[in-house]
This record gives sequence, structure tokens and C-alpha cells, in this order.
Amino acid sequence: MADPATSPPLNRASVQAARELIAPYVHHTPTLTNRTLTALTSTARTRAEVLERGEGQWAQIENPASPRLRLWFKCENLQRVGAFKARGRFMRWGGCNHAQALSLAARTHNVPAYIVMPEISTPSKVAATKGYGAKVIFSGSTSVEREAAAAKVIEETGARLVPPYDHPDIILGQGTLGLELQEDAARMMAEQKQGQDHEGGRCSFAAPVTKTDDAAAGGSKKKKVGLDAILAPCGGGGMLSGVALSCEGTGIRVFGCEPWYQGADDAKRGYETGARVPWHVIYERRLVSGFYSVSEREIRDALRLVLERFKMVVEPSAAVPLAVALYNEDFRGMVEREAGEEGWDVGVVFSGGNVSLEALGKLFADAEGK
Amino acid sequence: MADPATSPPLNRASVQAARELIAPYVHHTPTLTNRTLTALTSTARTRAEVLERGEGQWAQIENPASPRLRLWFKCENLQRVGAFKARGRFMRWGGCNHAQALSLAARTHNVPAYIVMPEISTPSKVAATKGYGAKVIFSGSTSVEREAAAAKVIEETGARLVPPYDHPDIILGQGTLGLELQEDAARMMAEQKQGQDHEGGRCSFAAPVTKTDDAAAGGSKKKKVGLDAILAPCGGGGMLSGVALSCEGTGIRVFGCEPWYQGADDAKRGYETGARVPWHVIYERRLVSGFYSVSEREIRDALRLVLERFKMVVEPSAAVPLAVALYNEDFRGMVEREAGEEGWDVGVVFSGGNVSLEALGKLFADAEGK
Repeated sequence: MADPATSPPLNRASVQAARELIAPYVHHTPTLTNRTLTALTSTARTRAEVLERGEGQWAQIENPASPRLRLWFKCENLQRVGAFKARGRFMRWGGCNHAQALSLAARTHNVPAYIVMPEISTPSKVAATKGYGAKVIFSGSTSVEREAAAAKVIEETGARLVPPYDHPDIILGQGTLGLELQEDAARMMAEQKQGQDHEGGRCSFAAPVTKTDDAAAGGSKKKKVGLDAILAPCGGGGMLSGVALSCEGTGIRVFGCEPWYQGADDAKRGYETGARVPWHVIYERRLVSGFYSVSEREIRDALRLVLERFKMVVEPSAAVPLAVALYNEDFRGMVEREAGEEGWDVGVVFSGGNVSLEALGKLFADAEGK
Repeated sequence: MADPATSPPLNRASVQAARELIAPYVHHTPTLTNRTLTALTSTARTRAEVLERGEGQWAQIENPASPRLRLWFKCENLQRVGAFKARGRFMRWGGCNHAQALSLAARTHNVPAYIVMPEISTPSKVAATKGYGAKVIFSGSTSVEREAAAAKVIEETGARLVPPYDHPDIILGQGTLGLELQEDAARMMAEQKQGQDHEGGRCSFAAPVTKTDDAAAGGSKKKKVGLDAILAPCGGGGMLSGVALSCEGTGIRVFGCEPWYQGADDAKRGYETGARVPWHVIYERRLVSGFYSVSEREIRDALRLVLERFKMVVEPSAAVPLAVALYNEDFRGMVEREAGEEGWDVGVVFSGGNVSLEALGKLFADAEGK
């Protein structure tokens, strides 16, 4: 069990060190581009659409923003156990209810794992967790019931509870995805630029095998090669913090993306007031440039685009950053102002893909029923 | 409109030439690996499972096969318009009802396109086709109704009908995916081997950014670096033929994969009797080593694994080759015999990802209802 006091300092060098440590256990996931999604985010919406989809939120906006965005998607849905969480888990066996990641880490190190999961967990998640060799104990769905079940396991087996998501080691491990995204996007851009110089109009096809689209190269007049910003979801905040650390000193701005509904944007409020403990480091050092939130409907619409046009399975929370790029007029207006004609190359973190077909079906069926 | 008589000869060099021609218009899609799927195909099933899932088909089998397979997935679901068809379409504007591919090719060359689609087409497909600028004309769902609607368009507009899928140029264009798969898999294997020599157990993580898993490297004792076989779906047969041409002279065996139900394995019968015209070249030259078929249920089970464990959206027909690797005991037994301890590196073609969420939901809902 890691002691926060003996963890390495929270800076970019420690994220780089973490990368070496976890390399044997995690995947270097691909960075991919997509012409359709890049084109959609780079097209101004009509005022009618802004008003209708925004449910009145942007009523004061006369002219919808017209930013130039080139998107680079970091596919952590293709990470082991289907999410970025594997990175933190292997760095130090932390984790709240990150059942599969913890089970896999435990099996790899030949340690028994007991996973307390709510009875309402999706069968695919339970099956995958068991598949990694963990013993699954079911509990009620409230945190009180889960904690009681965990306490019972600890009493009976002598097992130790793994630390929470905001442990320094977890943050450093999860931040490693930011390093890969920065490097791969910069390399792909350099290769595209080379192609452009050599072959005129064919620039955009001189890309490596990760290349699935060309729009990201099309029309960029930027002199600097590399990302300008990264959009990352902030659930627990650990991954966002880690990504921010991975960008320290690079000039790349990092933005947190959240669902807007029902108080789920408490990270935004926490950040803005400086009150929330997990955000202490980020808040004091201002490594995150801001937060943007989107509605449940906007997340669902972005998710459908990812599934149907990008052909990637991501979980709803992983579609939040794309929803921000597509629909948040505050973000879009800021990019238009700051990036101008040159536009911005924006890394978009697809944080995970753990969603069952049944859950997806229900999500969209419920939406249509409304 | 291409005249088959003036098309290049059907051989590997022509596929290579086609690749140069279509490079500005199509994506070099990624080749990805997946530990879970590779492990599943490399594990012998229990006899009970073979009997139950096979619906009695393998009743004579005492000991289910235990092949060693390392899978390399060619992600043409990430191709433009969501399918390999873009390759053939840009090589020569052929195509039957390949609506999106044709629309995109037409728009790129600034030519108007009229697409006749059945009224029952999925809304996402219609929207995408219109999005590429084509005029969509709806017809009934039978081929007679479609041909009547097309004839009317031709009469009114002077438009020309595009040639069918088995045109030589289409076959050559579609075969280009085979070249990319061969090269990328070989390069990834070589990089993994290097990593193995340099770093012992960490071999499997020294892969490029396309690397999403390590099992493909794990335990390979092969001296030759490269694919041993490719499994491709055969719908119209054009893509399978093209892939076979791309493997000509390489020693890589190509197998056609089909749904088993309701006469859909006519390609197999056609091939075996030599009677079907589109298969003339392949049949005479024996560039396809054989055909394997799977049941509707096996396709659905493979599809679910791709969606839930690989996090990729593919259409049901694209899951047929994986279903063969997982469930066809004839194929599995053949690999066990031929490949032995060394195992085979097998390219698996994910041919496309054009399926709506609604269609997926219905597919699995119907299955559960049974």
C-alpha cells in the first residue's frame, strides 16, 4: 500500500517515470483522427440549433461560434480492462470500484482480490471481473451498503482496502496517457506536414497506420507542431489531474469536461472555490485552465456520433469531452477567439469503453421515449 | 465507366498499382490486436459447448480442436464511409447499392450522384448518403423495384449505372487492404521480436501506437515474421478475390468466411463446383484456400465480443471471420494440424461498421426473445 508521503512529487518528470514503471502492464493505445467529427466541430451551428439543443442555455448568443478545431482522439477505450484506469491501478493498486482493473492487477501479481460490486452491476462487468480471477461479493447499491460489505470482507479475510482514486501514484499513472497523446499527435502532425511538402495535396494520406482520417491535417497553417489543448473528462478528478501534470511546462492547455445535470458539475464548483480536497494541487497550481459542462442530451448525441460515425464503443462519460467540443458555446467561442484562423489541435480523451449492449440500447430507447 | 477488357491483369502487381491510385482518397486503416479475442480463439472449447453452440453440427467430434492463433485485425470499419468498399469505389466508380462510398467518390470528383435505396434503409445510412451530397431516391425493397427506380433515374437524367462489385478494378481496389494488413502485421511482429531480444519479457509492449494488446506476440516461436493466413468475409466475393490477389506468391493462405444459414453459403458451393462466374478467376487459380461457414448465433456471439471486449463497432457481416476462428471446428482443427506448436498469425478482416444503434439493439433483443 502506497503512503502518499513517500510518493514522488507531482510533476511532469514523475509522470514520465510512472510511464516506465507501468509500461510492461498497459497498452500504448492508438491516437486516431476522424474527418466527420473534426468537420462537425469546425462548423458553426445555426442559432436555432444552439437554442433548441441548449434548452435555452445560450439564449443570449446572437452568433454561434465558428471555431477551427482539429481533433486527436486518445483511445483509452482500447486500453486493458477497457479504460484508462488500468494505468493508475498498475502504478499502485489503488481504486474504488474499478473492479476489472484491480482484478487484473491482482492476478498479475498473484494476489487474491475481493471485489464488492452493487447487485445492479451490468452482467458483462461482473463476468469480466470474475474472468480476471477475482471473487465478487455483491452488495446494495448505496455507498453505505458497499462499505459495510467491504468491511466484512476485510474482517473475514484480512484483505486490505485499496486507496482511492486521488492517490498521488494513481494520478501519476493515469497521467501517462497524456504523454502518449502529446507525442503521438505531434509525430502524426510532423509526418503529415512532411507529406504536404513532398506531395502537395496528398499530405493528409502520408500518415502511419494509426491514420484513419485526414481532416486533422487539412488546412492547418500552424507553425508549431503539436497539440494546443486537451479535453479530458473529470469523474474522480485523478485522471484529469494526471493529464494536467503531463502537460506541465508544455504550453498545452488542459480543460476538464463534465456532465451538467444534477450537481455532477461539482468539480467545476469545487475548482472555482478551491474547496475540494482532491483538487487542491490542481487548484493551487492552476494546471487545469478551466471546466466546461454539457447536458445529458448533448452527451447522448455525441455518443451516438462516436458509435455510428467513428465506429468506436465508448461509455457515455467518455463522450463528454467531444460533447463539449461540439455543443458548448463557451468553449467554442473561446477557441474561436484564442485560436483564430490557425485553429487548435485538440486532444480528446476517450476515457473508456465499458458499456454493455443492453445499457446502450436502454440509453437510446429511453431518449426516444421522451 | 471501366471496360473490363482494358483493366489491368488480375495479379499482385496490379493490386500494388491500385494502391498508388487510390491512396489520395482512402485511409490506411489501423491493424490492431486484442488479447482477449486471441486468448479465446487459442483455447479449446469443452465438448459440451461445441455441441450446444454448434446445434449438433459437430456431433462427431470427440476432442474439440486446440489451435494456437494470434489474431491481427484489419479495421476497415474505420475506413471512409465505414467500410472497405471505399477502396473499390475510388479505384473505379463501380458499386451496387454501396450508397455512401459512391456518393463520396462522386462528390470528390464533382459529379452528381443519384442513389436508389430501399425505403426500409436505416435512417443513419440515408442521412450519411445525403450528407455526402447525393440525391436519394427511395424504392421498394425487392431488386425488381430497385432496378425499375434506377431505370427511371437514368431515363430522366442521363445518368449512367455504375458497374457491379465483381468488376476487375473494384476487385483490385478492394485488395489493397490485404497489402496494408500484410505489411503492418509483419512490421508489428518485427518490432515485437526486437523488443523481446532487447528486453526479455517486455517484448510485447515495444509496439507502435497501433498496439492495443500484447497477446499476439506472446509465446510465438515462429522463425518467419509475417502472417500465415487471412480470414475475410465473402459477400459479393470482390473483396475476398482482391485480398487473395494481394497474397499471390506470398505463401499466405486466404480463406473465405460466410454465414451458414439459408443458402448464404452459395459462394462455398459456387467455389467448390466452379460454377459461379464471379469466382471464375479465384476458382481456376486456386488463390483462395477454402471456405468456412458459421451460424447466425455464432456471428451474433462474435459480434458481441467485438463490441463489448474489443470496443469496436462492426456490422454483423464483419464479425463472420472472427466467428469462424472462434467456433468453426473444421477451421480450428485444420490450424491445429497445420500450425502445431508454432501456431498461426492470422489476419482477420473487419470489413465494415455501418450498423445503426437501433439495428444492433434489435439484433440482440430478438436473440434474447428466442
